[in-house]
Amino acid sequence: MSDHKETPRQLSLGAFLMGAGHHIAAWRDPAGAPQAALNFRNFVRAAQKAEAARFDLVFLADSASIREVESPSLELEERAVRFEPLTLLSALAAVTERIGLVGTASTTYNEPFNIARRFASLDRLSGGRAGWNLVTSSNPSDPGNFGQDALPDHAERYRRAHEFHEVVRGLWDSWDEGALLYDKAAGVLFDPQKLHPLNHAGEFYRVRGPLNVPPSPQGHPVVVQAGASDDGRETAARTAEAVFSAHQSFEEAAEFYGDVKERLSRYGRSRGSLKILPGVSPVVGRTEEEARQKFRSLQDRIDPVVGLALLRPIAGGVDLSAYPLDGPLPELPPTNAGKSRQKLLIDLARRKGLSIRELYLEIAGARGHWQLVGTPAQIADELEYFFRNEAADGFNIMPPQLDWGLDDFIELVVPELRRRGLFRSEYAGRTLRDHLGLARPVSRRASVRPVPTPAE
Amino acid sequence: MSDHKETPRQLSLGAFLMGAGHHIAAWRDPAGAPQAALNFRNFVRAAQKAEAARFDLVFLADSASIREVESPSLELEERAVRFEPLTLLSALAAVTERIGLVGTASTTYNEPFNIARRFASLDRLSGGRAGWNLVTSSNPSDPGNFGQDALPDHAERYRRAHEFHEVVRGLWDSWDEGALLYDKAAGVLFDPQKLHPLNHAGEFYRVRGPLNVPPSPQGHPVVVQAGASDDGRETAARTAEAVFSAHQSFEEAAEFYGDVKERLSRYGRSRGSLKILPGVSPVVGRTEEEARQKFRSLQDRIDPVVGLALLRPIAGGVDLSAYPLDGPLPELPPTNAGKSRQKLLIDLARRKGLSIRELYLEIAGARGHWQLVGTPAQIADELEYFFRNEAADGFNIMPPQLDWGLDDFIELVVPELRRRGLFRSEYAGRTLRDHLGLARPVSRRASVRPVPTPAE
Repeated sequence: MSDHKETPRQLSLGAFLMGAGHHIAAWRDPAGAPQAALNFRNFVRAAQKAEAARFDLVFLADSASIREVESPSLELEERAVRFEPLTLLSALAAVTERIGLVGTASTTYNEPFNIARRFASLDRLSGGRAGWNLVTSSNPSDPGNFGQDALPDHAERYRRAHEFHEVVRGLWDSWDEGALLYDKAAGVLFDPQKLHPLNHAGEFYRVRGPLNVPPSPQGHPVVVQAGASDDGRETAARTAEAVFSAHQSFEEAAEFYGDVKERLSRYGRSRGSLKILPGVSPVVGRTEEEARQKFRSLQDRIDPVVGLALLRPIAGGVDLSAYPLDGPLPELPPTNAGKSRQKLLIDLARRKGLSIRELYLEIAGARGHWQLVGTPAQIADELEYFFRNEAADGFNIMPPQLDWGLDDFIELVVPELRRRGLFRSEYAGRTLRDHLGLARPVSRRASVRPVPTPAE
Repeated sequence: MSDHKETPRQLSLGAFLMGAGHHIAAWRDPAGAPQAALNFRNFVRAAQKAEAARFDLVFLADSASIREVESPSLELEERAVRFEPLTLLSALAAVTERIGLVGTASTTYNEPFNIARRFASLDRLSGGRAGWNLVTSSNPSDPGNFGQDALPDHAERYRRAHEFHEVVRGLWDSWDEGALLYDKAAGVLFDPQKLHPLNHAGEFYRVRGPLNVPPSPQGHPVVVQAGASDDGRETAARTAEAVFSAHQSFEEAAEFYGDVKERLSRYGRSRGSLKILPGVSPVVGRTEEEARQKFRSLQDRIDPVVGLALLRPIAGGVDLSAYPLDGPLPELPPTNAGKSRQKLLIDLARRKGLSIRELYLEIAGARGHWQLVGTPAQIADELEYFFRNEAADGFNIMPPQLDWGLDDFIELVVPELRRRGLFRSEYAGRTLRDHLGLARPVSRRASVRPVPTPAE
């Protein structure tokens, strides 16, 4: 990976699309589209609006199971159903021209050859706009769909993720520049000297290669990470070109930003070679009161059963419904699922002295991400402060509600960011790498240097 | 699976899109698009043309590896590279409205939960237009990309395919009719009584379910099969709703048609519940001489190295380049890869007394499928004869060249089929099942009968 070209620093914006919106009760908004999570046209509209506003990318999360099938809250949990992200992004590729398309795929329950191939296909057919959000599965209901009784432990999942990434990157480097000739007269399609098997043999995977999809105009898909634990940070520094992070405060965001950027040097990477985009869920009003009113209209629609279900992943098996809703969070044991996220939320509750109800109301909006409620100027002030003070290179915008929530941000906050010279009015390039200011990757095969390893 | 509704019998047409066309030298046609196999717009044009002509479906084959990486013919083999089929079909779903979208996915190197989910997602976002061509991997270069040294043997691949299909069908039946409520006022999304885990535990797979994608307007994707061996025929009769078959003669096609339709009764299925669509590669001219001239222009562009490479999969390890090109095919040992296909081609050479060169020229066009070269009336005569005499319910059209090859069929043969009352002028329905005349499947869960098993 090489340094990126220096351009006037602009912030990057992602549109993180989820169902009827990120607020857990968004689907109950009378103004929202019915069955939003399963309505393709709804996603087309949102992606085209984000493109018209010159966002860098749309982003889709994933889950390979319905959580809590036997729970009383299931019928209240809109996120139980969704389109498989790469299927949806491929369809969106055909009806957009410029915006990046970043999808989540797990390294725990996929074959690296299949993932390398699918993202390379999306990258190629979209003209170089694909990104892969590399995750390890942390949802305890996933393994049952893949022949396993339980998740591999945290450390093993990350070892697997590292090796998986090595294989995928290696497969993406199967084709040197200029390998495709397509010389009709001579009857020569490829230069076989420029096509390389991988012959990977590691702890978890043996993959011969080469990949049967050649590179796109951006070289290969952008690699994105979302983990916040120590393993997650190290994986990001080693493998990622963008990170979608989750923070509740400037201090947390700045600590994360500084730490991950610092870790890059261990892998011979520059600070500009990885972009950090915290998630933020903005509820925008022309006045503070209007914004608060919009937020309240969503909060008021949260059923306590859903609120408690939201807390279940962090509760380590403790049944919180046995405790008073308006009392404090009890002591909780650590879990194997998403250590870092659990810690963030429990810290939040302790720090703010929140009751169980207040904690679920606190996270219901942005699910542990950063919730902003205010005027365009107030929201732009916050984003600008993070951006100018080493806490963010941009933001993954999580519309609390997919229709008015995204529209409000685009119509009210984006113009304010432009007035401040922080965000583009036009795309400068055609690929996701162009938008993010990332250099076209150097093939590891073509590199004179050996593959970088930790300096420690 | 229940009987289909009786409508005036019309033939079904698929557009089997492959790279620059099905003829092995199509990519060398000076009139063709450059890099056709990797040019998304090329596929959009072809799919939209097929839709405008009211074809039932577009179909994409697959291969999970580059064959013959170390062979001197690789650089001549256009099919070495391709988009992953479901990625491409998902993109095509967004720029078409009615045409069915059938893609190949192997049961050998995928997880059934992932395949069930991806096809259900495509089915849902396309409004009920998806089909899954269920195959077992028979390419000896595939296993190396998935941690294996060799393919599982033929019988094991088919046992795995049967169980894989059971799991996928079971997951597609996770949701009963009316399970989705989306009652905003009451805050009730699903009826939990109508959502069912699968709890499958078999020889190869353990899958809990339920699937996190609800059914589409056609219930679930159409299941397609392409195998021609005895195992393949039985799998088709047990699992498929459409079969893409490969034949060289009416006798072969009629034998296959009769045999597979007969086998349906063992599973309690009607003859109309499975549609048989032989592959056919038509080269159409306004005169016979024009058609022959078009075909010759493609045949003349086949390099002998490519021709020999085409025969390699059937040669059972024998190096045919050691034999005279214009001499007979030597004795060949049986291979594990695609038994039935090998037998078909060797029979063909023996029957017609073909030299090695003549055999590769014979199969280069349609690769063992049925090659027609003639006028619109001659081609329509052949198709009509098969259709009216229990050898075909329709055809999977394999354009020898993607631009003029598909155009010629649509502009010259389709009107002739319409004049004969054999092919629709307008779609009668919106889903792939509607086009094929297949009934919406009855959920196995909802069925009063137990899952049918062979009567033998």
